Amino acid sequence: MVLGKVVGTVWATRKDAQLTGLKLQIVRETALDGSLKERFVVAVDSVGAGVGETVLLAQGSSARQTDTTRNKPIDAVIVAIVDTIDLAR
Amino acid sequence: MVLGKVVGTVWATRKDAQLTGLKLQIVRETALDGSLKERFVVAVDSVGAGVGETVLLAQGSSARQTDTTRNKPIDAVIVAIVDTIDLAR
Amino acid sequence: MVLGKVVGTVWATRKDAQLTGLKLQIVRETALDGSLKERFVVAVDSVGAGVGETVLLAQGSSARQTDTTRNKPIDAVIVAIVDTIDLAR
Amino acid sequence: MVLGKVVGTVWATRKDAQLTGLKLQIVRETALDGSLKERFVVAVDSVGAGVGETVLLAQGSSARQTDTTRNKPIDAVIVAIVDTIDLAR
Amino acid sequence: MVLGKVVGTVWATRKDAQLTGLKLQIVRETALDGSLKERFVVAVDSVGAGVGETVLLAQGSSARQTDTTRNKPIDAVIVAIVDTIDLAR
Repeated sequence: MVLGKVVGTVWATRKDAQLTGLKLQIVRETALDGSLKERFVVAVDSVGAGVGETVLLAQGSSARQTDTTRNKPIDAVIVAIVDTIDLAR
Repeated sequence: MVLGKVVGTVWATRKDAQLTGLKLQIVRETALDGSLKERFVVAVDSVGAGVGETVLLAQGSSARQTDTTRNKPIDAVIVAIVDTIDLAR
Repeated sequence: MVLGKVVGTVWATRKDAQLTGLKLQIVRETALDGSLKERFVVAVDSVGAGVGETVLLAQGSSARQTDTTRNKPIDAVIVAIVDTIDLAR
Repeated sequence: MVLGKVVGTVWATRKDAQLTGLKLQIVRETALDGSLKERFVVAVDSVGAGVGETVLLAQGSSARQTDTTRNKPIDAVIVAIVDTIDLAR
Repeated sequence: MVLGKVVGTVWATRKDAQLTGLKLQIVRETALDGSLKERFVVAVDSVGAGVGETVLLAQGSSARQTDTTRNKPIDAVIVAIVDTIDLAR
């Protein structure tokens, strides 16, 4: 999974019907020191993550293995809100 | 999903029969400030997106989870036309 | 899908039996101005593309959704020969 | 598979229920000389790898082919702890 | 598929049971002129490729479509040993 931070939201009226009602969060990838990378993805939120929170993203077909996303045309989903990162010294 | 902008169309007469009748749009990825990246993909359009519109792309096996693309050799599909992007300050 | 140009062919006698009889084309990715990128893939040809032709590649599991490639250990397939690219000005 | 080194652990209380009880290890990719790359992923551990160990990661849908990860929204899993790397001279 | 050269072998005693008995080869990607790139993957060998041989790799879910790798947590497999590469002039 990829570590990222929720930095915004995408709004879309015209979309595939299977996306109806799903929250589309913009997640910028983060480095291990917490700094934001340029790279970002738009991910469906399955755990109630808000802007500013550090999250884990599952991507590819694995993004369809949640109750929120099953069988839908979605390739990125937030699967966890990170509390702590322990790094070896 | 990836954020992009439709910048053109690909025309192909000789193709896998399963692609018949599908619109093949050229989508350049965009940065969060709306600027175009060099990177682009050719995506099937399932929502009627036109040139100049900002869209969301689903890629990989997730690109086959729409009525337009199911079971076809397609690895990128436009799943939404973006109205607004809200970014945290 | 990715846009590319067929620049050569790979020949292999010792291979997985499921690859027998398939043409393995070398496809260099192209930029929107038609110039060749360094990046290339070896793709199975399902549409009769020859050297010098501009093609569309499907990759990943989507590469197995053609009659030529179904259920085979193949992650890239040529699905169309491009006639024209229309770019917005 | 990708070669990497376990450098830390991610803790998350709020997460998809299917992740309950799984250890989420931070794995930095390594070069062939053993040096750490900047690139890292968060992977589920299915083999008991500890911090400082060199491991092999399976990614994408293949990450769901272990007893620990089957059908879960997980796109990276540690599948082996590396004893030795033999490089040709 | 990706073109590469076998440059070594990985040995691992503690691993997912499904990897038992499989040969894990280190494959460095090669450019079209045959030079080695920095990028490498660890791949299961299904065709008996030895160190120094040029090979084709299938990756992602396609890597599980051989008799050697089916349903296993493996995301890269050697599917052919390359005899010749013909490049257009």
